[in-house]
Amino acid sequence: MHNKKIDKGHPVILTVDVVLLTLTKDLLQVALQKRDKEPYFGQPALPGGYVHAEEDIDSQAAARRVLREKLGLISPYLEQLYTFASATRDPRGWSASISYYALLPHEAIAAQQSDRLLFLPADDLPQLPFDHNRIIDTAVKRLRDKSTYSALPCHLLPELFTLSELQQTYEQILGHPLDKSAFRRKISDLGFLEATSKTRKGVHRPAQLHRIKPANKLILFNRTI
Amino acid sequence: MHNKKIDKGHPVILTVDVVLLTLTKDLLQVALQKRDKEPYFGQPALPGGYVHAEEDIDSQAAARRVLREKLGLISPYLEQLYTFASATRDPRGWSASISYYALLPHEAIAAQQSDRLLFLPADDLPQLPFDHNRIIDTAVKRLRDKSTYSALPCHLLPELFTLSELQQTYEQILGHPLDKSAFRRKISDLGFLEATSKTRKGVHRPAQLHRIKPANKLILFNRTI
Repeated sequence: MHNKKIDKGHPVILTVDVVLLTLTKDLLQVALQKRDKEPYFGQPALPGGYVHAEEDIDSQAAARRVLREKLGLISPYLEQLYTFASATRDPRGWSASISYYALLPHEAIAAQQSDRLLFLPADDLPQLPFDHNRIIDTAVKRLRDKSTYSALPCHLLPELFTLSELQQTYEQILGHPLDKSAFRRKISDLGFLEATSKTRKGVHRPAQLHRIKPANKLILFNRTI
Repeated sequence: MHNKKIDKGHPVILTVDVVLLTLTKDLLQVALQKRDKEPYFGQPALPGGYVHAEEDIDSQAAARRVLREKLGLISPYLEQLYTFASATRDPRGWSASISYYALLPHEAIAAQQSDRLLFLPADDLPQLPFDHNRIIDTAVKRLRDKSTYSALPCHLLPELFTLSELQQTYEQILGHPLDKSAFRRKISDLGFLEATSKTRKGVHRPAQLHRIKPANKLILFNRTI
């Protein structure tokens, strides 16, 4: 499947890599998978792989395939991050990694645990193969930058959540506490949430459950492209 | 130079394309070059080309080479935009274009005019080859989005400029007028400008010339990566 010759083709490696982020134990965690081939056999690295020219209609489809085949995940939030492309990032030769980042609530990936899959804190990683540390740093920075003006963090929560849970999620991403009334005012100004009729039992009184307005999802999450 | 075989190489085309934007006649204009080979011979398209695996250290270097070789430009502002990668965007086969956008003051490119180079209004383009319309639309949207919170538009001005010229530039990019006092307050809040001792003769009194604080350039212009 990978051997078809195109006359004008170039001796370059084209891959996609996916930075899957989630929140567990109050920390932003990244999914790593022990590599099952050389180079860097056995070392934890980002899930990724070659673009399959005869199977993937585009790079986004290639990233979705990686998530499906390697992590068993169907449709988390997925956005192109950056393309890391150089003569030196891969010992096999000139290589381009079209990198994506994906967000998923912890609950949705708890069932995906396997021997080869591990989650490590995104801010405290060992030295990883290739330039994967740099790719992850770029994804975390993008998520933090976007969190200051968008509904993006909602993808790390289940469909229904309280405003306190939402604030906690923003705080865990940003790494610092937020003022409650300023936070609620800002969320209200952004206007992407709607209250539901459901509640969750709280310490003092039941807390109302919220969700993202369905019509707003695309607008809010796809600002860059 | 393009025939070296890498065992794990893929039958894909890897190119860089550059969206060079400038302001002339109050409009955002994009540099297009008549193609000197098939496909789409003779049609205006974005300056671009294959990554040269043995010459380009990374994709940014490839984009700089394209600017230098095709447009004779040395170092305008250059930032990775997005990677357009699919089975269908290029009639030659599965193709990835790592796209960049560049900004340059009109004065700096006036000398680069040639038979094959033309500038067309970025918001009013004919149908271009490949997915170049989509690439340009993405670049213009990125520039507009970033203009609302950064010093990016300064790259479309000469080194020294008046605050009125700066406001005009923002207005031309955003496509609508801005309130003068609100604009000056915002620019002052962003804190990226410094006044110089030079002035330019105005209608009523001399207008002070400003420039970007040298120390701020990198911080302000490279927020995404």
